[in-house]
Amino acid sequence: MITLHHCVSARSFRPLWMLEEIGLSYELRMLPFPPRVLSRPYLEVNPLGTVPMLTDGAMRMTESAAICQYLAARFSAGQLDVGRGEPDFGPYLNYLHFGEATLTFPQTLVLRYAHFELAERKQPQVADDYAKWFLARLRTLEPLLAGRDHLCAGRFTAADVSVGYALLLAEHLGLAERFTPSVTAYWERLQARPGFKAAMAVQSRAAEAQGVSSTPAPDIRPDRP
Amino acid sequence: MITLHHCVSARSFRPLWMLEEIGLSYELRMLPFPPRVLSRPYLEVNPLGTVPMLTDGAMRMTESAAICQYLAARFSAGQLDVGRGEPDFGPYLNYLHFGEATLTFPQTLVLRYAHFELAERKQPQVADDYAKWFLARLRTLEPLLAGRDHLCAGRFTAADVSVGYALLLAEHLGLAERFTPSVTAYWERLQARPGFKAAMAVQSRAAEAQGVSSTPAPDIRPDRP
Repeated sequence: MITLHHCVSARSFRPLWMLEEIGLSYELRMLPFPPRVLSRPYLEVNPLGTVPMLTDGAMRMTESAAICQYLAARFSAGQLDVGRGEPDFGPYLNYLHFGEATLTFPQTLVLRYAHFELAERKQPQVADDYAKWFLARLRTLEPLLAGRDHLCAGRFTAADVSVGYALLLAEHLGLAERFTPSVTAYWERLQARPGFKAAMAVQSRAAEAQGVSSTPAPDIRPDRP
Repeated sequence: MITLHHCVSARSFRPLWMLEEIGLSYELRMLPFPPRVLSRPYLEVNPLGTVPMLTDGAMRMTESAAICQYLAARFSAGQLDVGRGEPDFGPYLNYLHFGEATLTFPQTLVLRYAHFELAERKQPQVADDYAKWFLARLRTLEPLLAGRDHLCAGRFTAADVSVGYALLLAEHLGLAERFTPSVTAYWERLQARPGFKAAMAVQSRAAEAQGVSSTPAPDIRPDRP
């Protein structure tokens, strides 16, 4: 049995999206964000205090892009995974990591120093440094996506979920209006997928049922009070 | 034919170490750090301007932890890889990502805002925030490593290379003295491996032969002039 610990619109949206794309059954446990602060008992379950945490029986994982590859390899009958023998095996692994290490971590600096921190600890220079950093790295996808619908292997894979989450986060941070044209079109294609829409709907319903704020990424909206 | 673009002690040390562990033949092209600034023609080869860049025939990869998994899966006859059917497949993928996204990226903030930036752009608060962030995440490995020699699967794998590089970077940043006991012992075991020693020796020789500074991570030593 698979259980996913999740906060609305956090990195744990990646495994949620994967679970919906594959059509697996799972239990979804919603937490307020950030769980390290607002849900202290969670630290006994996951000492990192982060989401996602996915358990599959006794097995635990905490890295969202790794979970995407795991679910694809174990449960998607090869459809969302790219096998070692396929020509795009290397690019597939590369985009799985690129989506997180290169496209998501820099945005967390924007999140932290432009939005989360108290006024006296805000760092506009750092937030600006890493917004630029993210957009510069993202632009390198423009020529690739001008010629194809998905990142690799000629089909939608876990790598698109990894990169797609970075685009969702950018949308919440107000950076999506600076996407280049082919990246914008790619992001629209991803949002139109039934699996993406199902994951969005599931997290809203679960947040309401479990008494957690269902506002998408409430703490990162520039207009929060 | 495999070619690796590398800067001394940068993330590209991960694939270099993997290549030496496996015993593959490869061409090593040294670049000054940071290549984006000091080796402008490299941007035509890799528009990201980052190292590593590994090519295997026409295939290109730029994410160091992904390259480790690629090399392990393609060339190590299962020894340094953990297959989909093994019980530790999930933890293996998790530690591959954990080594980079959770343990390395935060250290690059220390690197940038305590060392690289010009005086007026230094950010001691940010460097301190992310040094603490790194050490807190690293401490979660202590109970695991108290009971075993390697991260997963009962053997040395690409996941150890991913996490091991984060420990090397911490050593350069002066953070290794704050490692917990089992992490310290693990780091000593990794450094004692013939593959690690070979990679260290190879990068020194190549840097000298190709006229690139061979000082380990010269820009990040706290005592640089």
